[in-house]
Amino acid sequence: MAAENLSKGGRRREQILSAAVELFGEVGYRGTSLRDIAQRVGITHPGLLYHFHSKQELLSAVLARRDETDEANFRFDDQPTARAHAERLLELADHNSTTPGIIELFATLSAESTDPEHPAHDYFSRRYRRVIDLFQGLFDRLGEEGELRDGVDTTELGLIFTALMDGLQVQWLYEPEQVDVAGVLRRFFNGYLREPLGV
Amino acid sequence: MAAENLSKGGRRREQILSAAVELFGEVGYRGTSLRDIAQRVGITHPGLLYHFHSKQELLSAVLARRDETDEANFRFDDQPTARAHAERLLELADHNSTTPGIIELFATLSAESTDPEHPAHDYFSRRYRRVIDLFQGLFDRLGEEGELRDGVDTTELGLIFTALMDGLQVQWLYEPEQVDVAGVLRRFFNGYLREPLGV
Repeated sequence: MAAENLSKGGRRREQILSAAVELFGEVGYRGTSLRDIAQRVGITHPGLLYHFHSKQELLSAVLARRDETDEANFRFDDQPTARAHAERLLELADHNSTTPGIIELFATLSAESTDPEHPAHDYFSRRYRRVIDLFQGLFDRLGEEGELRDGVDTTELGLIFTALMDGLQVQWLYEPEQVDVAGVLRRFFNGYLREPLGV
Repeated sequence: MAAENLSKGGRRREQILSAAVELFGEVGYRGTSLRDIAQRVGITHPGLLYHFHSKQELLSAVLARRDETDEANFRFDDQPTARAHAERLLELADHNSTTPGIIELFATLSAESTDPEHPAHDYFSRRYRRVIDLFQGLFDRLGEEGELRDGVDTTELGLIFTALMDGLQVQWLYEPEQVDVAGVLRRFFNGYLREPLGV
């Protein structure tokens, strides 16, 4: 929903969510307090509590928002060919490199949430499984449609491609000018194909 | 230096460093207080301050300790052949998977420290540069010594291998039973070689 169509309360909620994404990404979930978030929005602590009753509720809302976006993004397996599916996913990776705040959020939260006690632990466990399966399915389908070079073993490619994306994003956060995440992913991906994808 | 050869003060210092490694890994540098660390060691807050005057000083000591270990680990380029060098580095990766505390420390701190204001930011910037250069140099040397398959482009392999290690380690922290970091790295690495490395 575009911000201009929201009620005043809805807009305030959006501002709080945006500030939470920024702060969770910058200093982690555990390093952020509700007071920090209220301060960034420019409202009082009780004003924030009117919209979200706890930090955990706010985290759930941030992650649910990502799930909505992911639903739209991941639902690409209705593409007619594996090549078309691959194109869409790599375009998505290109697009992600324009949203450093979200990348920082995921890099920080996913590392922090390896602790089984962390409130986002189950979310990230499920998400990893899902992203790995998505890419594994894509490589398998590319194989079935005869797109892979001879001798490519797809067994671990879902795991590998997911790990590569994560690791490159962290490197990019350190050296945004020097690490071309989308370019490296595209060249890496094309290394497995008989014919490279179009640009 | 082995713990039994240390003075009482030296042993206490070691206990504090170990507790800091654990807590920085579990909840991040920003999520940890000196009081938390003192509590884990079983000493008072002033007792801890006698050994380390600030959290930042303790972080520096933790990272300096890692640098000593790395110095020993990374100084493998005196190996007679690129294959021998590769063997040693992959053994090191195998060994790392037996030290989950250190892996958790690096996964959490490296994500948290992408913020340029974080006291470990410069440390991780330098470390990434160094690890990437190390692997890039290894792949280049493997090429010069005729060990790589035809058509392998080494240009980005240092970056890629480093990213893959990082990403796999995070996945492993979520699913330690299911992600075989050292095995995946070894098979990935061997995929570029004419003849696989010995086990």
